[in-house]
Order: sequence, then structure tokens, then C-alpha cells
Amino acid sequence: MTRKPSLIASEIKEILAEGRKQELLDFLREQLPHDIAAYLEDLEPRTIADIVLSLGSPVGPDAFQKLPTDLQVEVLEEMSRNDGARLLEGMDPDERADLVKALPEDEAERILPLIAQAKRNEIARLLNYEEGTAGSVMTTEYAALEEDLTITEAFSELRRIAPDRDTLYNIYVVDGARRLVGVIPLKDLFVQPSLARLKEVMRKDVISVKGTDDVEEVAKIAKDYDLVSIPVVDDESKLIGIVTIDDIVDVFEEEATEDMYHYGAIDEHVRYLPSNPIWLARQRVVWLILLAAVGFISGAVIDRYEAIITSVFALAIFVPVINASGGNAGTQASTVIIRGLATGEISVADSLKIFRKEIFVGLSVGVVVALVGGLRGYLLEHSIKLALTVGLAMVAVVTFATVLGAVLPLVFKRLKLDPAVVSGPFIASVLDVVALLIYLEIARLILNL
Amino acid sequence: MTRKPSLIASEIKEILAEGRKQELLDFLREQLPHDIAAYLEDLEPRTIADIVLSLGSPVGPDAFQKLPTDLQVEVLEEMSRNDGARLLEGMDPDERADLVKALPEDEAERILPLIAQAKRNEIARLLNYEEGTAGSVMTTEYAALEEDLTITEAFSELRRIAPDRDTLYNIYVVDGARRLVGVIPLKDLFVQPSLARLKEVMRKDVISVKGTDDVEEVAKIAKDYDLVSIPVVDDESKLIGIVTIDDIVDVFEEEATEDMYHYGAIDEHVRYLPSNPIWLARQRVVWLILLAAVGFISGAVIDRYEAIITSVFALAIFVPVINASGGNAGTQASTVIIRGLATGEISVADSLKIFRKEIFVGLSVGVVVALVGGLRGYLLEHSIKLALTVGLAMVAVVTFATVLGAVLPLVFKRLKLDPAVVSGPFIASVLDVVALLIYLEIARLILNL
Repeated sequence: MTRKPSLIASEIKEILAEGRKQELLDFLREQLPHDIAAYLEDLEPRTIADIVLSLGSPVGPDAFQKLPTDLQVEVLEEMSRNDGARLLEGMDPDERADLVKALPEDEAERILPLIAQAKRNEIARLLNYEEGTAGSVMTTEYAALEEDLTITEAFSELRRIAPDRDTLYNIYVVDGARRLVGVIPLKDLFVQPSLARLKEVMRKDVISVKGTDDVEEVAKIAKDYDLVSIPVVDDESKLIGIVTIDDIVDVFEEEATEDMYHYGAIDEHVRYLPSNPIWLARQRVVWLILLAAVGFISGAVIDRYEAIITSVFALAIFVPVINASGGNAGTQASTVIIRGLATGEISVADSLKIFRKEIFVGLSVGVVVALVGGLRGYLLEHSIKLALTVGLAMVAVVTFATVLGAVLPLVFKRLKLDPAVVSGPFIASVLDVVALLIYLEIARLILNL
Repeated sequence: MTRKPSLIASEIKEILAEGRKQELLDFLREQLPHDIAAYLEDLEPRTIADIVLSLGSPVGPDAFQKLPTDLQVEVLEEMSRNDGARLLEGMDPDERADLVKALPEDEAERILPLIAQAKRNEIARLLNYEEGTAGSVMTTEYAALEEDLTITEAFSELRRIAPDRDTLYNIYVVDGARRLVGVIPLKDLFVQPSLARLKEVMRKDVISVKGTDDVEEVAKIAKDYDLVSIPVVDDESKLIGIVTIDDIVDVFEEEATEDMYHYGAIDEHVRYLPSNPIWLARQRVVWLILLAAVGFISGAVIDRYEAIITSVFALAIFVPVINASGGNAGTQASTVIIRGLATGEISVADSLKIFRKEIFVGLSVGVVVALVGGLRGYLLEHSIKLALTVGLAMVAVVTFATVLGAVLPLVFKRLKLDPAVVSGPFIASVLDVVALLIYLEIARLILNL
């Protein structure tokens, strides 16, 4: 069945206040790590620290590492050096490295010396990789066997290491110098003759990535080839870790979040609920000011055409709908292209095809919208000329907006910039300026102003 | 290493024209299914059909099912009934059902009768589930063993079925009535004593879903619990299939695409490059007309305030920046909330907290933007009153926009509607009307108009 938290923070506090801690621990030990973390998340860091330590290993560290990283830091600060070090040792290598990276320097210096040397070296190695690289999300818990082993030998080796490995779906095969030479899905071991050597039965077309590769590229490879883990190698093709599918899923989700944030003209993704409102405001205000500056340019255009607008005030009435149609058509086109680039459905090489397509789409959509706008223009003043002005302006604005909305992300992509930075608000603001210029120039021509 | 297509469609055509088909087939047989599909994708359906059939089983069907579904349909239509039926039989059950669903009725009637009865029943069972349910994406290729088997017996059973199973990471344990009672990760089999029965060593806290469950919920569960496959059961808890992680990843990606599309005011996701521009235009035009209608309301507001605007024309100059600031602030807030709801970072239960937070965010962002706007107002006319009007209007509009942008998605979510339908363009258009009303009323008061 699907598990859902059935206790809430206040109930847990009550249970603890009543001295029924053992009862709570018994209950939590029956739960899965993600659920334990969900129960704990809203408690005080001090209380969480107490419960996590009381749960013991492996339940305590397993649940602890499912908490958000910033909360992990707060909880760790409530523990003694020894308890903190034991807890860190119980975590998965990649989660542990993430936490250490997030620790304030003095806290790291307090705890790290108490961690076993091997694990400390491992942390240092993982921290070597920049955020967003395969190396920064890989785990060092994997199964690598030498190519000369027989299936029987492989079985007994696996029997030795399997208990320590949370995720073990593929056996990676290495040569004497630890270079990656093949892969064997765990299930293949069952069907191979027991005296066959790994190098005889392994798949040699193993897909691997470098530790410095972009994790978004790694995620795309995992998706394309339906992989549940990808081996990571160094410059000498030596196996140094694997990226597992749970990290890949997180990458996809975070990537989509960042694309949407950029697209909504927001800087970067932070956890919403625990964030200080001042921080949330800072994320948004810079873009708002920049876009307001573009708005002033639109204002300057209106200023310049004051004579025309005041002589035919009906023109002013259509400013919002013309601006909105341009902004919306541009947003639609850029949404399709930005998302297509993100999923790999389209690529920069398709630019010419996209350009031709969007001219057609823009024109046909523009004509339909213009008919509506022109009709409204005629009904308002019973003036054919006003109807014609509004209609022509809408065709031109919508077509231009559609093509610009589609082309800008492609240009950004080609310049190796993030196409999602071409946000909806950005496109809409820029198009406001252009739309006003097109509209008022067409008005000047048709209405002889 | 990472594999990238190194041949292109025209080269393949040349190779075929030169009669070097065998060479091409030898090359393709060395590639992974995803790469073969990438090579074939841009060829004529007729040519693809020929190559897929020549590749034989399992390479042909494996590569074929990696093609986009609409292309699969076209390719299948180029084949004889017998070839088509053999190809379908070679596909994975879930991919096969997807293709059959996409086939025109007469084509399905032409081919299906030639498919083995068991596979036809399986197709019918999978097609029974509505699009977007766990049943519609599950596969029937999984390993289920009875709880009374010993580890040794399980091994020999696995040896029998493993070759047929592409993905085999977990063994699902069922009782005599085929009810799901537990799960054993494949790797656990290595560490258990060979005479232990499965029911003694299985994990009993197995997470499962119903065939009718929403696949987006299933994806969330897989992510939360780090699962690589989820068993699907019927109303009597009988195991009927599994959803594998590759389908989960696809669900996440498609979900993010749909959210972005809705958010960009576009109807539904279709493959961009092969789509007729007329279809692309139809996807967008309905929303544009609806939003234009909202724009007419903004126009009506301007119309009503004609006297005020013409007496102080400088007011008109600030219409674009006030509208843009409102639209942008609203888009930012709704982006954060919509994405937070999608990832589960926030929930409707947090509404009050969000409301309070966004009032604060809106006010502080509004004040900063208003200072910029007010300054510009003062510089333009050296009028304190105009500066005050613009400044106050911006504080009010940005605050209102921020709160509305945050609250609307929550309201939609509570009404069980898709919060992403509160698109950026929709929020921006609605806010245009409100912003104009606020701005011009403040102007009337301060400027005594």
C-alpha cells in the first residue's frame, strides 16, 4: 500500500512529552526511511537529533539522509562530535559528501577529524568535483569485479560485498589496472555457465561518463538508453563511481524546476517554505527592476506618439490588447522551443525548419486574432480605418512576436547560454516596445496622422 | 563512451543505393537500440520497415520500439500482415500496447488476428487501462515467485525466466492466490542461506499501486522511495504487472512539459517537428483569442478614464510599466507556487503560510520597484504628485499581483483543477485590468481629476 504520514509534529511532541519515546521509536523503526524523514521534518532540530541517534544504525542514518540538506546541517549542529561523526559514517557516500559541502567550515572541522581516514579521503575525492558534474552526484558504493573471475568466483565475491550495497543491479567489469571494460546485468549471472569468465560473457558496449561531465547530459544518456546506473570513469578510463537512477530522477526534476524558474523570471530555486521572505523577495526584485526599465522604453514610445494618441483616443484603448497579444504569442512560441530544446525533441540544427514553421504559425494565428481585433475596432467607432489599423497591427505584432519568441531561445542556445533565460516576462516586455512602435506607425500611415 | 549518431539519413540512403545494405546492417547490429532508432528516424517509413525487418529479432523490434509512436504506425503500415505481426510479437508488452492503441482501426484489424492469442489477451488487458494510469504504462514482464520456494529453487526458476526479462532487479513474492506479499531485491538472493524460504527472507513492507492509480502519483512514490520498479496490483491485491523506472522517468519529463505548456498558455504537447503548422496554430489560437478578450476589458477601462488620461497625458506613459510590473510579479509568484505544488515541495495545507509570506514579499518588492518608478515619474515632469501616483500604484499593483499569483494556483489545486492552467499569460492579462483600475483611481484621488 501507499504509505502516508499519519502522525504530525504536534502529536509526536505530545508522545515525547508523555515519556512514550520507546513507543515512538518502535513505530518509526517499522517505517521506510522516506516516511520517517517525513514524520521528523517539522520537529525542532534538537528533537530530530535525539530521535535519529536513538533509532541507531542503519535506520537513523538512512532516515537522516532523506531530510533536506539545510535541515541536516541544523540537526548535526545539535549533536556531539562523536555522535555526528558516527552518523556521517552511516550515510551513503554521495549524500555524505553533499552534507559535508553544506556544513559551515568550523562545524566540518569539528566533526571530520573523527571520521575514519578512508571515508575522509572518499569525501575529499567526491568534493573535488564541481556542483552539477557527474562526479558530484556519483556514489562510490558499486560492484566492480575483475574480468578474469569465473561466474562462480563472481558469485562468492558478490556474496561478500552485497550486504553493503543498497543498489546493486549491474556488475561492472574492470581489467588489472581497474579500467572499465564491460558490464553484466546482475540477472545475466544466473544464465551463464559457472566456469565462464566475466570477460567472455560481459557486454563490451558499456556506456560510461567522465566525472567532469555535466550531470544533465548524464541524465539524458540514462533516459535514452534506459539505464538504472551509469559508471563514471577518470581520464585513464578507470572506474571511480556510479551515478544511480534515483539521482538521475532528482536531476530531471531539478532541471525542470530551474527551467520553469528562469522562464518565470526568477533567479534560482530555493526551498520555499523554510526560506526567509526577504530572500524570496531578493530572488525576484532584480528581474522586476530590469523589466520595469524595459517598460520605461515602452513609455517613451507612447510619449513620442502623444500627438497621434490624443488626436484619436480610440488608439489608446487598443494598446493593452495589442501588447497582450504580442506578449502571449511570443510566450507560446518560446515555451514550445525552450521545452523542446530541454527534452532534446528539437535542436539548434532545426533552426531553419523552425523559422519557416513559426512564420506560418504566426501569420495564421495573427490573421485570426486580427479579425477579432478588427471587428472590435469597427464596433467601437464604426470606422473602417480604425478597424484596419488594429487588424493590420495585430497581424504584424503576433507574427513578429511568434517568430521572435521561437528564434531567441535558439540564438541563446547557439551562444551556449541557457535558452530558458529568455523568460516569458522578458519576451513580453521586449515585445511591448516593438508592438507599440508597429501599431502607432501603422496608425500614422492609415489614419494620415 | 557516449554514443552519438555519426551517419545521417542521406548517407544511409547513399549506402543503400550503392547496394551495400549488408554493410549497413552489420554496422547497425553493433549499435544500441536507441542509437539504431536515431539513425533510422529521418528515413522514409518504407526504408525503415525494410531495415527493421532485415535486422531480425531481437535487434529489429528493440530498435523499432525506440522510434516515436506516430512513426512506428507509419512504418508498420509499410509491412505485410505477417511481418507486422512478428514485429509486434517481438516488442515489450507495454510498448506493444501503446502502439496498438495508436493504430488506425483497420490497420489493427489487419494485423492483430495474426498475433498469438496469449499476447492478444495481454494487449487487451493493458489497453483496458485509461491513459495516464499505472495500468497503461506497466509491463507484464516481471519475475514473480511463490513464497514457499527456497532460495535454491528460486535460483533455478530465475535461471529459466531471466533470459526473457530485460529488466530484472526485484523478485516479487506472491502467495498461492497470486496475491503480492513481499519483495526481494535480486542482490539479496546472494546473501541468504540456500534453504531459506522466500517468505522468511522477503521484505514484507512492499510498496504497490493499483492499476487505476494516476501514473504521476506512481512516479512520485518511485522518487520518494528510490524504487527502480513498482508492482501493480488489482482490487484483490493480485500482482498484474510492474511499472519500471524508465517509464517513470518518461512520466516526469512529460509532466514537466505539460506544466510548462499550460503555463505558456498552450493546449497540449505534440511532437513539434513532424506536426503540421496548422495544428500548431490551432493549439495556440484559442488561448490567444480568450486572452485578447481580457485585453478588451483593459481597453474598456482606458476608455472610461479618457478624461483623466487626456488631461494628464504623462499618466499614459506609465501604463506599460505598471502593467508589466504587475504581470511580471504575478508570473513570478505563480511560477514558484505551481512548481512547488508539482514537486510536492508545498501543499494546499500551507496556503495560509504562503499567503502571509507573499504579502510580505509583494510589499517589499513593490516598494523597491515603486521607488524606481516614482523617481522616473518625478524626473519626467518634476511633479511630486505624479511621482507619488506612480509610486503608490506600483506598490499596490505589485503587492496585489504577487498575492493573486500565489493564491490562484492554490485555489485551482483545491478545486482539483490543474494549477498550471493559471498560466503566465492568463495572470498577466487579468492583472492588466486590475492594474489599470488601481492606477487610474489613485491618479484620480491624488491629482484631483
